[in-house]
Amino acid sequence: MDHKVLKLKDQFPQNTGNFLILNSSNIMYFTGFSGATALVVSRVGENILYVSETNFEQAKHEVKNVRVERVIRGESVFKKICQDVEISVKNRLAIDVISVEGWKFLVKIVGGEDNLVLSGDVVRGLRAVKTSDEVECIREACRIADVGISTAYEVVEPGVSEQEVIAEVEYAMRKQGSSGVAFDTIVVSGANCAFPHGACKRQIIKDGDLVVVDLGATVGNYRSDITRTVVAGKISSKQQEIFDVVKVAQDLAVKAVSEGVKAVDVDAVARSFIGRAGFRDYFVHNLGHGVGLDIHEAPMLSPDSKDILKEGNVVTVEPGVYIVGFGGIRIEDTICVTKHGYEKLTNSAYTLQTNQK
Amino acid sequence: MDHKVLKLKDQFPQNTGNFLILNSSNIMYFTGFSGATALVVSRVGENILYVSETNFEQAKHEVKNVRVERVIRGESVFKKICQDVEISVKNRLAIDVISVEGWKFLVKIVGGEDNLVLSGDVVRGLRAVKTSDEVECIREACRIADVGISTAYEVVEPGVSEQEVIAEVEYAMRKQGSSGVAFDTIVVSGANCAFPHGACKRQIIKDGDLVVVDLGATVGNYRSDITRTVVAGKISSKQQEIFDVVKVAQDLAVKAVSEGVKAVDVDAVARSFIGRAGFRDYFVHNLGHGVGLDIHEAPMLSPDSKDILKEGNVVTVEPGVYIVGFGGIRIEDTICVTKHGYEKLTNSAYTLQTNQK
Repeated sequence: MDHKVLKLKDQFPQNTGNFLILNSSNIMYFTGFSGATALVVSRVGENILYVSETNFEQAKHEVKNVRVERVIRGESVFKKICQDVEISVKNRLAIDVISVEGWKFLVKIVGGEDNLVLSGDVVRGLRAVKTSDEVECIREACRIADVGISTAYEVVEPGVSEQEVIAEVEYAMRKQGSSGVAFDTIVVSGANCAFPHGACKRQIIKDGDLVVVDLGATVGNYRSDITRTVVAGKISSKQQEIFDVVKVAQDLAVKAVSEGVKAVDVDAVARSFIGRAGFRDYFVHNLGHGVGLDIHEAPMLSPDSKDILKEGNVVTVEPGVYIVGFGGIRIEDTICVTKHGYEKLTNSAYTLQTNQK
Repeated sequence: MDHKVLKLKDQFPQNTGNFLILNSSNIMYFTGFSGATALVVSRVGENILYVSETNFEQAKHEVKNVRVERVIRGESVFKKICQDVEISVKNRLAIDVISVEGWKFLVKIVGGEDNLVLSGDVVRGLRAVKTSDEVECIREACRIADVGISTAYEVVEPGVSEQEVIAEVEYAMRKQGSSGVAFDTIVVSGANCAFPHGACKRQIIKDGDLVVVDLGATVGNYRSDITRTVVAGKISSKQQEIFDVVKVAQDLAVKAVSEGVKAVDVDAVARSFIGRAGFRDYFVHNLGHGVGLDIHEAPMLSPDSKDILKEGNVVTVEPGVYIVGFGGIRIEDTICVTKHGYEKLTNSAYTLQTNQK
């Protein structure tokens, strides 16, 4: 935990003595432990992890370089923190995220809003730039996701249900060492492909159906994210035409990625190509998002993003075209931003054709 | 959606004209749709679902009896809502949950906190009492979870890894129709069983190891939750002794469940039995929790719960004994509260012994 905590201490807002971390992914980021109620990182004093009785022994066993405090049933963790650390206008408490109720309660204890400062963006920024250890986890999660996709290429065929495809791809990823899915696996076919987040309806895949397969694995709590779209059986010329547009858009956008590039510009590369091809209104979502402990984190690749890409960012690039009545085609990879370009972490083939004959 | 929305309208706080629902499980509860940004339920007017461009077409296609409004990129959903509905001190906006930032933003638009009222408890209370359709989904999710447990009884043996057990139980549940795990499947063995939420360490299960298997399935977005503890190979007398204590404690607590009973009293039945057996300090968590769209929801079965059980509550009953250096044993079922008692929804056998010889 030391390296990441030191970086946080470098970025404390002015007049801040302690940083209260409440979001569980953020706590995981700094400690490697997910079962805590709160973490306090101190500018000068000891760092303290607050853990309920349920997970107290586990925390003591697993988390190093931090004082582990037990939170007894009925005890307010906020009151406890205010007893443990000094909070004043000159020594404010920074907070990553907090509920309204928690905020109001804290304001009352510390005697005013001026003693608190919402600073979630600081942690967001730290988490966006991955260490080599973090990239290693994501790289392995991407390798496993590629196995998931190759399994889909094997099992998708007319007569098989969406649900069966999910069963096989998730099993294959578990057998490869995934600690669980990175998000609910999406396998949608036919007309439902027109909905980017269409839920599996347990439909039987029919001859000529588009099938969107969007999946990810998890390794050491870090996630991966990949989408391929295939056709079960005979491919129509319209399916091939739109696939080719999305494929080129994705390739151009991936190649636009590099340290120092504005995220909004990468989004524009894909969006304008798809627009020129005549599908401007059918690319209905952002180009991509950061991936790490959460499946959606910084930076965002979108038309209104303020992010500038940095070496160590891990992002998806996932343009799509969705037409109600026709279906949808999305192609997505997880890539790492490097000094002079990018490294693709997912490496599955790009083809509408499955391995079925 | 009509029935649940009507119930909500019956429970609007005084001087409230509209209820803003932001939590995604709550939106799912009222609409069956998970991809929306916000739902406004109106006391007298139209109900409105706010959806981003990404999921707009899907929402129009899938959600009935509600006006679906598109939220354009860059547009504030809060501003949009304040334009669509009238908010005043006599016509307050109730809100289920909201971030501090969202709250402060809304307070500014509506001209003061008096125009808003945090009312998450109302939705919490509604969701705690399941309709027969909801119980049907959970019953099926419980049947599938039982298949997961019987799979574990088949595959747990010395030499098999925790990870392999998870792969097999999750695959079996998917094949039975589960839409995905209800939560991260827990399979922990040996000394790690002493941690109630111990993460799978990919350990190889050894002869004589305790193995805690805690899993759940999902059907129609409703979840199930069951735990069984087994021994790989030869069972020690201490393992059997503690198993018997936990088993009786669980049985007594389950039998204490009925409409009108205080949740705190059900917790006490198990806790005092375990205490009298000499393990008071080793039962380190609550007795149970409600299960539904979320894996943890109302009511809570704990020493500080204020809940009174109602017909239609679906709860877990899951006492455990955890001893660092020895391991842990937990037994958990999902049950439905009835007028005069309970119905067990999970029905797996209770035995430390696997099917391996």
